[in-house]
Amino acid sequence: MKIIGIIGGMGPAATCDLYQKITDLTDAKSDQDHIHIIIDSNTNIPDRTAAILHGGTDPVPELVKSAKLLQDDGADFLIMPCNTAHYFKDKITEQVDIPLVSIIESTADALLAKGVKKAGLLATDGTVQSGVYKNVFDKKGIELVYPDEEDQKVVMSLIYDFVKKGIFDPEKLPTDKTKAIVKKLQDEGCQSIILGCTELPIAFKALGMYDMCTDATLELAKAAVRFAGAPLKED
Amino acid sequence: MKIIGIIGGMGPAATCDLYQKITDLTDAKSDQDHIHIIIDSNTNIPDRTAAILHGGTDPVPELVKSAKLLQDDGADFLIMPCNTAHYFKDKITEQVDIPLVSIIESTADALLAKGVKKAGLLATDGTVQSGVYKNVFDKKGIELVYPDEEDQKVVMSLIYDFVKKGIFDPEKLPTDKTKAIVKKLQDEGCQSIILGCTELPIAFKALGMYDMCTDATLELAKAAVRFAGAPLKED
Repeated sequence: MKIIGIIGGMGPAATCDLYQKITDLTDAKSDQDHIHIIIDSNTNIPDRTAAILHGGTDPVPELVKSAKLLQDDGADFLIMPCNTAHYFKDKITEQVDIPLVSIIESTADALLAKGVKKAGLLATDGTVQSGVYKNVFDKKGIELVYPDEEDQKVVMSLIYDFVKKGIFDPEKLPTDKTKAIVKKLQDEGCQSIILGCTELPIAFKALGMYDMCTDATLELAKAAVRFAGAPLKED
Repeated sequence: MKIIGIIGGMGPAATCDLYQKITDLTDAKSDQDHIHIIIDSNTNIPDRTAAILHGGTDPVPELVKSAKLLQDDGADFLIMPCNTAHYFKDKITEQVDIPLVSIIESTADALLAKGVKKAGLLATDGTVQSGVYKNVFDKKGIELVYPDEEDQKVVMSLIYDFVKKGIFDPEKLPTDKTKAIVKKLQDEGCQSIILGCTELPIAFKALGMYDMCTDATLELAKAAVRFAGAPLKED
C-alpha cells in the first residue's frame, strides 16, 4: 500500500474529518491493515481566500514546506483537505516529485459516475471566484450553479463564524437560511449540492442536511483509499 | 506554541479521536490559532499486547522510527494515543531528545485533582498485566481495581472484535455485559472508571456510557494543549 501525505490544518477540524473518513472507508480488520498516513496539520498556512481575493499573505511557501516535509517523510502521494488551497495546486506539485490527488477532480468524477450534469456549489469566496471548481467542471461537462451574493455571505459566515470557531450547535447555526439556499439551488435544477469547503460537511451533519449533498471530503477520501491500493469498504 | 508530534496508528480511529479532542479543546478563533501538529499514523507498528504477552514482534523499532521522524520534522514533544505502547516509553525517549507527555501520568494527575483515590481500569491485557498503569498509580497513591478474568475477556473483545474492526453500532456491541462490568467496579468502591485503552472512548460513546468514565485520551489531549502552550477551552 502507498503512504498518504496529508497537507492539513486548513482547518484542523476538516483535516480530522478527512482522516476519520479514510479510516472508516478502509476495509481493515486490525491496525496493521490500515493505510500508513502522515499528516502535517500545519496551522501556519495563511488563509487561502484572503490571499486569493484580498491581498493576504501568500500561502504557497507554507504549502510547499508541508508538501516537501511529507515527501521527505516517505509519502507516495499528497492530498489536501482544503478546496480553496487547490487554487495553488500546480505551484505545490512543481516543487515535489510525488502526485497530488485533487479533491475537485475526485468530486467531479464521483458526480459524473452518478450521472449528475448540473450541480450547486457551496464553497468559500476564494474557491468560487478563483474558478478552481469551474476550470475542472467545464472540462468534465458538469454545469455549476452558485448561490447569489446574499446567500454566499451566509455560506462564508457558516464556515468562518461557526465551524472554524468550533461552533457546531444546530441551535446556534443559521439553519433556516442554509436550508433556503439549498432549496433555491435545487429549484434551479441542481441534481446535487456540492459541499465544496471541507468545513461544510461538519456543519451540514450538525444541521441534519448532510445526506442530501455531495461531500467533496468524502469523495477525496474514497479516491485516496483507492489510490493507496487499500480495499474500500462498501457503504 | 510548541509543535506536537503524535506517534499514531495504534489504531488510526484512536489517533483521530485524540486529534479531534486536541482541536476541540483548543480555544481558537481561526485556523492559525490552532496548534501545529504532525501525526505519523504508522500502521506498521506491530500489536503491543501481542508483543508484551505472547512473544509477538517487538514494536520498539517502528515506535522509535516514528519518534525520530517526528523529531526531525520539528516536533517539540511527543504524545502517543495508545496506553499499552507506554510500556515501551523509556525505550522510545532514550532514542530522541524531545520529551514524551504520558497518557498514564496525565490520567493519574486528572484523577488526583478530582480527589479520586480508587479507580477501575478498563484496558488491554497488555496494559493490565504489564503493570504500566500500576507503576504510575502506586507512586501517585491511587488504588486500581481490575475486571475479573471473564470480564477482562469482554473488554478485550470490545477493543479487538469491535472498535479495531470499525464496528460501532450499539446494537452489535456487547452492551449489557459492558454495563455489568462497570457496575461491578463501582460496587467495589471505584470512584471513577478509567477508559485506559484509546479504542474504548469510541465504544463507550456509542454505548451512551462515556460520561460516567474518565477518558484517558481526553486527559492526554488536555495535557498536550497545556504543554504546547495553547489556551484551553473551558468545558
